[in-house]
Amino acid sequence: MKNLALLLFLITIQVFAQTPDEKQLKLIYDAALTQGKAYDWLNYISNQIGGRLSGSVQAQKAVEYTKQQMESLGLDKVWLQPVMVPKWVRGTPEFAYFETSPGMTTNIPICALGGSVATPPGGVKANLVEVHGLEELKSLGRKKLEGKIVFFNRPMDPKKIETFEAYSNCVDQRTSGAAEAAKYGAVGVIVRSMNLRLDDFPHTGAMSYGDTPIKDRIPAAAISTNGAELLSITLKLNPDIKFAFRQSCQNLEDVPSFNVIGEIRGSVHPEEIMVVGGHLDSWDLGQGAQDDGAGCVQSMEVLRLLKKTGYRPKRTIRVVLFMNEENGLRGGTKYAEEAKAKNEKHVFALESDSGGYTPRGFSFDCSDANLAQAHGWKKMFEPYLIHFFEKGYSGADILPLKNDQIVLAGLRPDSQRYFDVHHSANDTFDQVNKRELELGAATMASLVYLFDKYGVVQ
Amino acid sequence: MKNLALLLFLITIQVFAQTPDEKQLKLIYDAALTQGKAYDWLNYISNQIGGRLSGSVQAQKAVEYTKQQMESLGLDKVWLQPVMVPKWVRGTPEFAYFETSPGMTTNIPICALGGSVATPPGGVKANLVEVHGLEELKSLGRKKLEGKIVFFNRPMDPKKIETFEAYSNCVDQRTSGAAEAAKYGAVGVIVRSMNLRLDDFPHTGAMSYGDTPIKDRIPAAAISTNGAELLSITLKLNPDIKFAFRQSCQNLEDVPSFNVIGEIRGSVHPEEIMVVGGHLDSWDLGQGAQDDGAGCVQSMEVLRLLKKTGYRPKRTIRVVLFMNEENGLRGGTKYAEEAKAKNEKHVFALESDSGGYTPRGFSFDCSDANLAQAHGWKKMFEPYLIHFFEKGYSGADILPLKNDQIVLAGLRPDSQRYFDVHHSANDTFDQVNKRELELGAATMASLVYLFDKYGVVQ
Repeated sequence: MKNLALLLFLITIQVFAQTPDEKQLKLIYDAALTQGKAYDWLNYISNQIGGRLSGSVQAQKAVEYTKQQMESLGLDKVWLQPVMVPKWVRGTPEFAYFETSPGMTTNIPICALGGSVATPPGGVKANLVEVHGLEELKSLGRKKLEGKIVFFNRPMDPKKIETFEAYSNCVDQRTSGAAEAAKYGAVGVIVRSMNLRLDDFPHTGAMSYGDTPIKDRIPAAAISTNGAELLSITLKLNPDIKFAFRQSCQNLEDVPSFNVIGEIRGSVHPEEIMVVGGHLDSWDLGQGAQDDGAGCVQSMEVLRLLKKTGYRPKRTIRVVLFMNEENGLRGGTKYAEEAKAKNEKHVFALESDSGGYTPRGFSFDCSDANLAQAHGWKKMFEPYLIHFFEKGYSGADILPLKNDQIVLAGLRPDSQRYFDVHHSANDTFDQVNKRELELGAATMASLVYLFDKYGVVQ
Repeated sequence: MKNLALLLFLITIQVFAQTPDEKQLKLIYDAALTQGKAYDWLNYISNQIGGRLSGSVQAQKAVEYTKQQMESLGLDKVWLQPVMVPKWVRGTPEFAYFETSPGMTTNIPICALGGSVATPPGGVKANLVEVHGLEELKSLGRKKLEGKIVFFNRPMDPKKIETFEAYSNCVDQRTSGAAEAAKYGAVGVIVRSMNLRLDDFPHTGAMSYGDTPIKDRIPAAAISTNGAELLSITLKLNPDIKFAFRQSCQNLEDVPSFNVIGEIRGSVHPEEIMVVGGHLDSWDLGQGAQDDGAGCVQSMEVLRLLKKTGYRPKRTIRVVLFMNEENGLRGGTKYAEEAKAKNEKHVFALESDSGGYTPRGFSFDCSDANLAQAHGWKKMFEPYLIHFFEKGYSGADILPLKNDQIVLAGLRPDSQRYFDVHHSANDTFDQVNKRELELGAATMASLVYLFDKYGVVQ
C-alpha cells in the first residue's frame, strides 16, 4: 500500500506539479486532504460547544478552545484581543399561532430576530397585513397598518444563481422591517425566513431599530418558509385572521469578549501583515457549523498547512477569529482600530464566511493590478477546479481594514445549500462535508502562499 | 455571514441576456429554477418507488411511472423498448462478524456485491488475509490464500480532487477481487466500500466472475469503511482472527424489462437524433436518488424545458431512460443495437450519471472540431458558474453509440459528496438539493439547445 501510494503520488506530481509554485500547491492540497485538522476542530466547536452568540458561555468556551488549539500549532504568538460585545438573549422558546375563528388556531414555527425586543408577557395578538417590501408600507399608510402585525413575505429570488445575491435583495425586510413598520403604528413584525427551500425552520438574523425611540420599538420574529406560505394562503381566504406571538428576548448590557489571534512572524518583511479569518460567534439556534465555524477552522488550518508543508512565510501571517460578526461587528471594528492605532501595515486580508462548501474561487476587493496578479495564478488552480477570480465582496470582518493598498478577498464556495441552514437550527456539523471543508482550507492557504511569496502590488 | 454589509455586495454575476442564445439560456435556467418538475419526479421515484434493481417490481413501477409522466409532457412519441435483463436478488439480510477468540465476536456491516453467489446456508468462516490490490494476490500465492477469506482494503485516494478518479483506481478490487482470489483457493472475499468517508454504510456494486467455472465461484461482500478500519487494526493485533459471513443472494433467469423513451421530432432534420439520458435502474439498498434517479429526471426535464421555453428543435431530441446500467448495461447495449439495425443517425448523446450535485460542466468524447465548438460556448455558461469543458468520459449507457461522428458528453457535477452515498442505503432523496438538481437539468438543456441549433461538426 505504501508503495502504491508513493507511485500514485509520483504520477500526480509529474502531471500537475512542475514549477515550485505548482509543487507547493500540491503539497498544500495533499496535506489538507490527508492530514487535515479542520474537520476535527469543527466537530468540537459544533458538537461540544454549539451555538456561540456573542456574550454567551459558549462564545467564551470557543475563545478558550481555539486559543488552546492555536497554541498547540507552534505559532510564534497567540493572544486574545479584548472587545466589548452586545449581549442579546433569546429567553424562553417563542410561540406563535394564527386564529381563523375564535378558538380555531394553528401553530407556526417562529423565532425572535436578533436584537428584537420582547412582546408583552401575554404576547401580541392582532390582524395581519401581508406586504412584500418596505416601500409597500408607505403606500398602505398608518390607516391600514396601525394596530396590525406586518407580515413581510418577499421570497428570495430562485433565479439568482449566486444565492447571496438573492439574500441581499431580500434581507432589508429583516433588518429594517420593524423600524419601518413602527413608523405607521404597527404592533409587531414577522418576516419570511431568508431560505430558498420550503421547510419548517425559522431563520433568525440581525435586525436594527435605527433611531426608533425605545418606547416605540415593536417585536420582530422570523417565520419558516412553510409557515409563510401557509399564512399567505390562509390570509387570501380569510383576511381577518388574527396572528399571535410571544417572545421574551432581551438586550442586556455589553459584556467583555475577545478576538482570538495567532501569527507566524514573517522572515523577510515581518512588518507586512496578512490576515486570514472567519467569525467565531454564531447565532444560537444551531451549532454555527457552516456559519461560521467552517471559516474559523479553515483559517486556523491555513497557518497549520503552511507550517506542515515546510513553507516559511516572508510576511507575517495572522489568523484572526473575529467575535460578534452577527450582531454588532465589534470584533472586526476593534481589530481594525487597533491596527490603525499601532500603525500596523496590513497588506492582505482573506475571509471565509460563506460556508465550508466546495470552493469555487475568490472575490477580490483590491486594485486592478492585484486582481491581474491573481488572474495570473488561475492556471495553477485549475487542477483543483478553482475557477472564480472576480471583483467583489470580501467579508464583513475584514472590510474595516480597507484602504487603497490592501488586497481584501473572500472565499467563494458553492452557495446552493448555504441558505438551507443559515441562521437556523439546521446549521449543524452533519451539514458539513469533510472534503469540501478541506478543499476550502487548501484553496485559502494556496492564495495566502502566493500573495506572501510575490507580495501585494503597491 | 450577515446582512447589513451585504448591501455593499458587489454583484459580479450579472446575467446580461443580449444575444438570442444568451436569452434562450436565461429562459431555460429561469424555468428550471422557478417551474421545475425534476425534484417532484425524483421525490416520487425515490420515496414512492425506491431502489429499482433490474428485474424488480420497483424497476417495473419506475418504467410505468416515467412513461406516464413523459406522456403528460406532450412529446411527439413515447414508447417502451423491450430488453431482457439479468435478475439478481439479495435475499435475506447479510450478516458478518469477526471472532478474536472462540465466542468473542464483533458484528460488522456488510452487503453482498451485486452478482455474487450466496455463501453456504451456514455461512463461510475462515481466517483473513488483508491485501491492497489484485497484484498482491500473486505474490502471496495459493499457499497463503487457500481456504482463506481475502480482505481487499485499498482505500480511495483522498488526494484526487475528482472523486471518480479515486473510484476508478480502486474499483478493480470489487469487480474482479472474487474471480482473482478464487484462482488461489480463497473461500470468500470482502471488499472495503468505495467511500471516501469513514462511516457504517456498506456500498454494493457490480462484480464479475469472468470465466471462473460455476463450481469455483466464491461469495463476495462489501464492508463499511469503519468496518474495514476496525478489521485492519484488529488483524494487526491478532492475525489469527476468524471472519464469518452469510448471504443468500441469487442469480436468477433473465427477465423482460424496458428502456423508456420519449422524443420531440425535429422540425428541420428529423433524421438526426440527439439523445439525453440517465439510467432508471438502481441498486436496491437505498432509493437510487443520486444514482441515477437524478440523471433520469434531469433528462426528462431537458425536453420539458425546451418545450416550456418555446424552443422548437431542428433535430429529433430523444430522452432515453436506460434499464440495467448497474449490473449488465443491457439497456444501453440494446438501444445502440436497435439504432444500428434501423440505420438511425445519432449525432449527439449526453448522459447524466454522476449525481444531481451542482453542475460544473461537461466532459466530451468527440472530435476536436466539436470540442472547439463547445469551447466557443463557454462564455455563455459563465453566468451559471459552468466552467468545465474538457475531453473525457461520457456515460456507460451512451458509450455503445460511439462512432467517429457522434458527440458524446457527460454532465460533470461537483463530485465531493457522491461516494458518500453511492450504491449504499444512504442514497436517498434527502441527499439531493433541489436547486443543484435543477441547475444540472438547465445546464444539460442549454447544451442540447446549442448542439441542436448549430449542429454537430461532421
